[in-house]
Parts: sequence; C-alpha cells; structure tokens
Amino acid sequence: MGKLLVFGHQNPDTDAIASAISFAYLQNQLGVEAEAVALGTPNEETQYALNYFKKDAPRVVETVANETDQVALMDHCEAQQSVSDIQDVEVKFVVDHHRIANFQTANPLYYRAEPVGCTNTIIYKLYKENDVEIPASIAGLMVSAIISDTLLFKSPTCTKQDIVVATELSTIAGIDLNTYGLDMLKAGTNLSNKSEEVLIDLDAKSFTMGGKNLRIAQVNTVDVPELLERRAALVAAMSASNAANNYDIFVLVITDILTSESTILPVGTDLDTVAEAFNASYQDGLLVLPGVVSRKKQVVPPLTNAFEG
Amino acid sequence: MGKLLVFGHQNPDTDAIASAISFAYLQNQLGVEAEAVALGTPNEETQYALNYFKKDAPRVVETVANETDQVALMDHCEAQQSVSDIQDVEVKFVVDHHRIANFQTANPLYYRAEPVGCTNTIIYKLYKENDVEIPASIAGLMVSAIISDTLLFKSPTCTKQDIVVATELSTIAGIDLNTYGLDMLKAGTNLSNKSEEVLIDLDAKSFTMGGKNLRIAQVNTVDVPELLERRAALVAAMSASNAANNYDIFVLVITDILTSESTILPVGTDLDTVAEAFNASYQDGLLVLPGVVSRKKQVVPPLTNAFEG
Repeated sequence: MGKLLVFGHQNPDTDAIASAISFAYLQNQLGVEAEAVALGTPNEETQYALNYFKKDAPRVVETVANETDQVALMDHCEAQQSVSDIQDVEVKFVVDHHRIANFQTANPLYYRAEPVGCTNTIIYKLYKENDVEIPASIAGLMVSAIISDTLLFKSPTCTKQDIVVATELSTIAGIDLNTYGLDMLKAGTNLSNKSEEVLIDLDAKSFTMGGKNLRIAQVNTVDVPELLERRAALVAAMSASNAANNYDIFVLVITDILTSESTILPVGTDLDTVAEAFNASYQDGLLVLPGVVSRKKQVVPPLTNAFEG
Repeated sequence: MGKLLVFGHQNPDTDAIASAISFAYLQNQLGVEAEAVALGTPNEETQYALNYFKKDAPRVVETVANETDQVALMDHCEAQQSVSDIQDVEVKFVVDHHRIANFQTANPLYYRAEPVGCTNTIIYKLYKENDVEIPASIAGLMVSAIISDTLLFKSPTCTKQDIVVATELSTIAGIDLNTYGLDMLKAGTNLSNKSEEVLIDLDAKSFTMGGKNLRIAQVNTVDVPELLERRAALVAAMSASNAANNYDIFVLVITDILTSESTILPVGTDLDTVAEAFNASYQDGLLVLPGVVSRKKQVVPPLTNAFEG
C-alpha cells in the first residue's frame, strides 16, 4: 500500500481544503502515512484562512493512481466531484456531510457521514474519539471551514453541534468567532477581479438527476445587483460551459450572505422544471428565493425531486 | 415523521437481528421513537441467542412505507438486500460493515461504516460515544452477533476491536465466551431438518456484478460430506431459484466452521469466471478453498473483480 492521499472535492472550498489538512494530520498522529492534497487551488476565502493561520495550501494533484493505491475522500463521495482516476484506487476512508450517491466500493471501508453543517465538525469528533490533541493552527482551519459552510451559523444546514464545536475550536485557535468569521467571509466575496468563466467555476458541482447533467454553481456576495450587471457575460460563460462539458442545465445560485436570499439564474434545457422545483415563477428570467442559502439542503434536494419525481 | 423503523437485511442472520434490537434500544434511550423489526424470522442460531437472553424476535415486516417514512438500515445498505419498498422511505441512519454499493440518498444522513467484523462492534462504540449503558440482555445479543459474524474470532474479517468489544460485552452479559460461543454456533449447523430450498436461502444475498445477477448463499456446518450427499437436490433447488429469480449464477458456499475451509458449488452461467475468481480448478464440479470462511472478505471481492475486471 502506498501513502494515504487525503483530499476534498474539485473546486475546493474552505471545508474541502481544511478537512484534508485536519484529517491527514489526525491520521499522522495515529501512525498512518498520510498527506493532504487538493483537486484545485484555494479560493480567496480559504487563502485568507491559510494566511491567517500560517499554513501552506495543499499540493494540487490531477491524478492519484500514479502515486498511491489508497485514498481518503473528504467532504464528498460522488465520483464526478472527485479525482479523475478515482476508479483506479481504493477508497479507504470517507468523511462527509452530504448525500450518498454515485459511490460504490468492492470492499468494506471506513465511512463516516453525519447530517451536520460541516465535515470538520465530524473530524473534531474523530480527534476526541481518538484522544488526539488539535494544534491551534489546525483548529483555526477547522473553525474557518465551519464558518464557511454555515455562513457563520446562518445556514439551515447548521446544527447545534456545529456551533458547539466551532466555539470550542475558536478557543483553541485564539480567535473571536464573529470578528474573524465576517472578515473571512468578506474575503471570499471579492468578485470584481474575476472573469465570468472563473466566477461560474468558483464553487461549482456536477450532479446527475433523472438522466440530466446539472452543473450547480454558487457565488456568495454582499451586492447582488452589482453582480447582475454582468448577467449577459455570465450567461454566455454558462452556455459555453454547457456545450463544452455536456451539461443539460447550468444553475447559478447567487447568495446574498447579509440578507440570506438567493437569486437563481439557470441556462440550458428544462428551465420550467427548475422553477417547478422551487415552486417559484421567473421574473425577468430569475428566481428569487428568500431564506435560501444552502445548495445542499435547499437547492439540490428540490431539484433532485423535480427531475427524478 | 413516523416512528423510526430499524432493521437488518433480508434472510436475517444473528448480526442483522441483534443490531436492529441494539440500535433501536440506543435510539430509544436518546429520545427517538424507534422500533426494531426484521425482514424475516430468526434462524436457529439467532433463536438460540434470543432464547438464552430471553428476548423476543422482532416483528417481521414485508413493507415499511405503509407505517412510516423513515428507516434505519443495519448490517446492509444495498437496495436488493433491503425491504422491498426502500425507495419510498427516507434512510436516516445506516450502521454497516460491508462495502457500499447500490445505495443512494437525496439528503444527507447518518452513515457509520467501519471495516470491522460485525455491525454490533460499531454499535457498541455508539453506546460509549453517547454514554448510554448497555443492559445485560442487549449485551448478550450483541456479543452473539460478534461470535456469529467472526465464527468465534476465526474469520479474517475479525479485527482486534471485535475481540476487545466481545470480551467487554461477555462480561456485561455474564457468559463464558468460548462455551457459549460454540454452543450457539453449533445450534446453527443443524441442517438435517431443513429442505434444500430452505438451506440455500438460509443466509443468502444477491449481488449485481458486471451486469450479472449473482446469488451467494453460505451454509455453516461441521460435516461437509454429509451435506454433499444431498448435492443433486441442492443443485435442483439452485437451478429452480435461478430460473424463478432471474439469477445468472447461484454460488453455494459450504463452510466447515471447525476446519475453516469452504467448498464452493456454483450453478448457472459463467462457471469458468467463478473458478478464475478464486484462482482454483474444479474437482468434480466443486472448488475447495482452504482458509476461506468469509463471504464478505474472501468471496464477494474476488468475484466482483473477476466479473467486473
């Protein structure tokens, strides 16, 4: 067996990067030769957290079978969100807080999923269960991931456990949750310096639902109208991505992190089914969804039901 | 939400029955309205354990959606091993020690799998993590499940954790592990009073591998030649089962629990692929595999590799 490579999903967000680092460190402490890697470079929010806690970004890999035969998947399980050659290695561990789909193994494995707001909330429990101490810098990345995934506890995916764990981690990391949290989230909403092609790929995941290929991207902002000034160019980028990647529908979810409201801009086929999923009507081609901030809990399940129902 | 129904796989073995009882009790203690049910009646080994610890067999159900909308799967995850209307309810919990396949959800869930010898070894950890005391009778069923799944620690699926947990549980249950364990295992090897149709269905699971439908049944015995005197009738029963259920291959694994050797008798198509899977040759239509006692670890993975490779 080669070294255990630990990584989060493609288009890594803060939880994907931080969970790879925190789980690999835990495995190291338990005597396992493990290395955190990533399927992409950190976004600006994650880079803010890495800089703050003086940690390097994980090495980026395109494939894994060329260097190992065993991997650990963090914050995802679906093959289309994972490394391109996932079929050629054995998945030994999964720690995740998403649905299970498009995933199968030939052998028993360690799989730990809980319906909490963040993978790092589960990893915190693994540290406790294995009686391993969490260094301040690792705790800092872990709490950053919880802040990111729960939008500072505002998301409906946030559970009591996430808040309790984040509070404990913030003490270890020596930060004030609210001050640090808002600074970190704002660092991730600087959209003006990014091309439309980059924006629609910043936090995007692919799903297969009822035989259709959906790409669902989410962009956090504190100024929706400013972003919608670039609507024509965004639609052109999404259309090009649909054509290039064989997506049937590209769904862009623009989330205002201050008002907790999302605006949905879809491009492709079956747009009526998208509106039906949210029981909403298009206004100027947009669906405005008050209270919707979570792709996992408020966007993917209704779309799955509508396309597979 | 209705009451949480907790159940193991079809053709329940001791782990399937015991894990439903032990997990439902744990959930009750945590304030969840949960009931252990079963997808079949207990086999003789399990009935021995239930009688010994004075516990009733769980109520048998054919379907679940008529009485609830949420379930917990124990000791399995694959749809074809589960209740017939599994697609109509939400899977809220899985505790398992098998591969993950033919399983998907629309929503996040609690999924706990570990590569240990028995589901009840994992459930024991859940009791500890939640600080819930295990009553003696529940501990007795849990240790019975570990003895059953590991063939009293002889199976290669058995881990150190299974031995440590079984030893602790035996103390709570007030039994001598070896004396009780051998008595319980022997209670399950009384094959003479069973028809061939019953024998091949006693501990049988269905798998889809490389587009083929495989039925893999395992029978434990202390006298393989005695069982093989009934070979012609066994083959007839397996052929009839293939025809009735659309199985391509029926693989009967006859395991001598004293010598830890299995004899494989397959019926159907692709018999060469079956032999190839084990790197073995047929002698009088049988594959004799020394040291093979575990369907999960020593039978399913090589067959999966051979049929999907």
